[in-house]
Amino acid sequence: MKIGFIGLGRMGLAMVSRLLAAGHEVYVFNRTASKLASLVSEGAKACETPGEVAGHADVVLSMLADDTALNAVTAGDGGLISVMSKGAIHIAMGTHDVNFIRQLADDHAAAGQILLAAPVLGRPDAVTAGRLGVIVGGDPKAVSHCLPVLEALGRRVFQAGTDPGSASAMKLANNFLLASAIESIGEAFALVEKSGVDVQVFHDLVTDGLFASPAYNTYAKIIANKSWDEVGFTVSLALKDINLALAAGMAAGVPLPSANVCRDRLIGATAHGEGELDWAAMAREQARASGLI
Amino acid sequence: MKIGFIGLGRMGLAMVSRLLAAGHEVYVFNRTASKLASLVSEGAKACETPGEVAGHADVVLSMLADDTALNAVTAGDGGLISVMSKGAIHIAMGTHDVNFIRQLADDHAAAGQILLAAPVLGRPDAVTAGRLGVIVGGDPKAVSHCLPVLEALGRRVFQAGTDPGSASAMKLANNFLLASAIESIGEAFALVEKSGVDVQVFHDLVTDGLFASPAYNTYAKIIANKSWDEVGFTVSLALKDINLALAAGMAAGVPLPSANVCRDRLIGATAHGEGELDWAAMAREQARASGLI
Amino acid sequence: MKIGFIGLGRMGLAMVSRLLAAGHEVYVFNRTASKLASLVSEGAKACETPGEVAGHADVVLSMLADDTALNAVTAGDGGLISVMSKGAIHIAMGTHDVNFIRQLADDHAAAGQILLAAPVLGRPDAVTAGRLGVIVGGDPKAVSHCLPVLEALGRRVFQAGTDPGSASAMKLANNFLLASAIESIGEAFALVEKSGVDVQVFHDLVTDGLFASPAYNTYAKIIANKSWDEVGFTVSLALKDINLALAAGMAAGVPLPSANVCRDRLIGATAHGEGELDWAAMAREQARASGLI
Amino acid sequence: MKIGFIGLGRMGLAMVSRLLAAGHEVYVFNRTASKLASLVSEGAKACETPGEVAGHADVVLSMLADDTALNAVTAGDGGLISVMSKGAIHIAMGTHDVNFIRQLADDHAAAGQILLAAPVLGRPDAVTAGRLGVIVGGDPKAVSHCLPVLEALGRRVFQAGTDPGSASAMKLANNFLLASAIESIGEAFALVEKSGVDVQVFHDLVTDGLFASPAYNTYAKIIANKSWDEVGFTVSLALKDINLALAAGMAAGVPLPSANVCRDRLIGATAHGEGELDWAAMAREQARASGLI
Repeated sequence: MKIGFIGLGRMGLAMVSRLLAAGHEVYVFNRTASKLASLVSEGAKACETPGEVAGHADVVLSMLADDTALNAVTAGDGGLISVMSKGAIHIAMGTHDVNFIRQLADDHAAAGQILLAAPVLGRPDAVTAGRLGVIVGGDPKAVSHCLPVLEALGRRVFQAGTDPGSASAMKLANNFLLASAIESIGEAFALVEKSGVDVQVFHDLVTDGLFASPAYNTYAKIIANKSWDEVGFTVSLALKDINLALAAGMAAGVPLPSANVCRDRLIGATAHGEGELDWAAMAREQARASGLI
Repeated sequence: MKIGFIGLGRMGLAMVSRLLAAGHEVYVFNRTASKLASLVSEGAKACETPGEVAGHADVVLSMLADDTALNAVTAGDGGLISVMSKGAIHIAMGTHDVNFIRQLADDHAAAGQILLAAPVLGRPDAVTAGRLGVIVGGDPKAVSHCLPVLEALGRRVFQAGTDPGSASAMKLANNFLLASAIESIGEAFALVEKSGVDVQVFHDLVTDGLFASPAYNTYAKIIANKSWDEVGFTVSLALKDINLALAAGMAAGVPLPSANVCRDRLIGATAHGEGELDWAAMAREQARASGLI
Repeated sequence: MKIGFIGLGRMGLAMVSRLLAAGHEVYVFNRTASKLASLVSEGAKACETPGEVAGHADVVLSMLADDTALNAVTAGDGGLISVMSKGAIHIAMGTHDVNFIRQLADDHAAAGQILLAAPVLGRPDAVTAGRLGVIVGGDPKAVSHCLPVLEALGRRVFQAGTDPGSASAMKLANNFLLASAIESIGEAFALVEKSGVDVQVFHDLVTDGLFASPAYNTYAKIIANKSWDEVGFTVSLALKDINLALAAGMAAGVPLPSANVCRDRLIGATAHGEGELDWAAMAREQARASGLI
Repeated sequence: MKIGFIGLGRMGLAMVSRLLAAGHEVYVFNRTASKLASLVSEGAKACETPGEVAGHADVVLSMLADDTALNAVTAGDGGLISVMSKGAIHIAMGTHDVNFIRQLADDHAAAGQILLAAPVLGRPDAVTAGRLGVIVGGDPKAVSHCLPVLEALGRRVFQAGTDPGSASAMKLANNFLLASAIESIGEAFALVEKSGVDVQVFHDLVTDGLFASPAYNTYAKIIANKSWDEVGFTVSLALKDINLALAAGMAAGVPLPSANVCRDRLIGATAHGEGELDWAAMAREQARASGLI
């Protein structure tokens, strides 16, 4: 399949490599052209504008950091909506606001194009290892058509629903679930530490049996070891995502009290100058409120 | 070892069977004597008072529903404190208030006795299958002395600290962690359901990869299937435990905002007449607040 | 009227003085007898036991610090329940747990006596100035009979309902309302201070117009001036009351999320060693979470 | 003074009338021109574009519903930034996002103009009666220059700080404070109602003494009488404002847990189809969570 790809951050680079390895023809564009060199050596075709990408491919994937970046490549003169042909498909793979995705879907539809949202679960190393999860939402025929592409990218594809916004909501619900797990681990550690328990013993309990899972294993360890400076995902990015989850809750008419607790911690961590620590630093806010630090 | 055992609810019955099977000599007392018959046929010795139990055994285990029940067998004339010999050990295995356990430890100490707290993780079927987790706290020498008994009861013994209250706090932190996981699963399900996602797909995501663990598997399934009438642990009992966790937080000087969210849900479920449903019914409160039911 | 009075803390002393000034005959008991001297000079009759008080009076008022103290003068040999005559009335004027009051009412009823709960709004200076508010709950006939006594004590009597527990709940709801006002003032001050507003200007706004009331005037001033060391009511006592409010919420099946926020602040203040500051120090916890201090 | 005015909703109409009555020369523009007629008969000069307004006046006031509307009259060709002369002052009197106001101030500054933010406290009837409160923020010289205009509009001018965003933050803090008062009144009413208290008695207590103020008088009455269909300010508008308050908190690094509680109620009310009721309907969400309705 001829695939366009816009947005070559660390995730995008890994995803294009994987698509090339699966035998797809990939046309790439990035604002910073220097990032293209290594991909070109792997077989990618470099384009100079989103329009050139759209000219070669019937399916264009975008992997962008936020709504503003996605808006910049879709709206206005030369934006994807103006350059994609009728019937072409745009798959937005970043984590975006539910209402923004719905508006973008409407704008593409008005131009005779189709938007799928397909946010992903996993980091660049998961892409490379073929362990990525993909959540896709949008027109079922378009989803069927694109499944080979999405399956090339990862281990499993979850089909959220016919509304692209549903995929965004599901991705944000997943991230919220993780934030909430981290928050409660942090609260529980503060409780046992101030009650005289060796935190390493509590770490052992949390990672044993009932909660034994990648999420709890990862974050109980960071919190027990206070190793927030080994950053997987920052407080700042987590705050962006939890705000999107709360906005999704508002759009859907769903109060999310546990998300509020997480948001308050992330704001507090930012206020304490810890926005670039790993988001497990939410536990430091709990420790502060408990007089531990 | 000669072991006394007081409190033959479903947990107590399973625990005594296991101790007998491990070759221990077990002296049992229960307010309702009829419960003793089956254990006697397995080799247990029935006693008519806590004092008779204490007269035969150097280590007395109690497995009682709450602080009131434990107080009833320890305080006053004929209570364990008045009848146990100096140097004897009482292991309280129920889930109790941290400050109550500390006071009881002081009262035992004043009588020359030792209190260990050893609350457990698991249901009667986990006892029978040898999968119980045990959290022990108290005097290290007494803990060492009793380890064979505790190891006979389960799969793994977690040593919380030298303060018996620390074991209570750790057990309550574990239960709070579970409550908080259930709560956030319920919030996330409401968010995706109202955003147009098939809840079964979200169930698949939650039980796959990042959160794959007994806790999330169990409760995502109950919430996706709305099967709260298959009761594992009731709203009422969960409310008791979350109140104990919050009291432990107060004793330790640790605010627990996520526990507050859970407590509000459990109170709400009770107010809606659902106190005897499975505690996953917390998700029904979230559904109510979201206008889903 | 012949009135008994038990519990001569600062509130009790002021209340007895007022009753004497209104021409009532007052029989007083206190564990620490030295407190009686000044009252005797004002005309009070000193008694050596609660029983002696009950022997002289048909209505006994108690003004005690907590449930434990009230239990100590009511239960057991020589306690009010054992010594009061049939038909006699006990008016509990302290701030007590709703369920404790209901149990005490049942115990008095079983002995043919009547319990009214009549918690008060105001400090000792309000008693002296005749500005006390009184909330009374219990049997309507007994309330009517005792109205002259209650009206002698203060400015206004609020009749909560026929259940003595309802008066406790109303008093606790009032204190919660005040806690919540202080908490939100503290949050708002942190918001404007970190947004570049002179806090004195925000103080002027809060005490002007919409919120102009004793509660907001008092606490906006303390928070603007950071004068928590001029203690009106301590963090520790407030934490006791907010716990009682939450317990009343549980008894009634009412989640109180704003009370949870206050409780977390009060626990945090205690954890930071500020339990004896004025409860407006809740705002210090907000300031901590915001990185202001 | 020659004053421009853009945005003739109910507030804007009342404000222009008041400025005319004070003897100012007022040039008005509105997208819907029909609204201008009555003002013209009072002496206002109708303009056909924002540019025409800016051509006549050195001070332009805007009173618009939200950031989108304000952006529409300030940005782009013919927007205020492009047509105002150097040194001219724009006073934004609506309730806007703190960061939006700061960005707008920068954009005006880049064009050599000055932005003041001057959000107001009160409804149209308060404007007419001269009881409006005005909170102003921005360059002190410009504030001094415009004080006569602001003082013509209301009873009292609060000077927030030299950053226009500080005035927005202060206005949002005020609205949050009111939301939080309503929320806690709703919680307290649910508590007393389910505890057997006549809500009218609790109403009397809340409006007496400690909390006697317009805010508590107004909302305790609505909640006691369940008169949410007499709408002063809707749930929908309140949700917009509380979201702005939370965004201001994020901008300033201030977690606002009480605002989260209010936001959840407002989302819940919306989910229950009550977005156009008076915002006191937050108390209905509390009643739902308590099983009262």
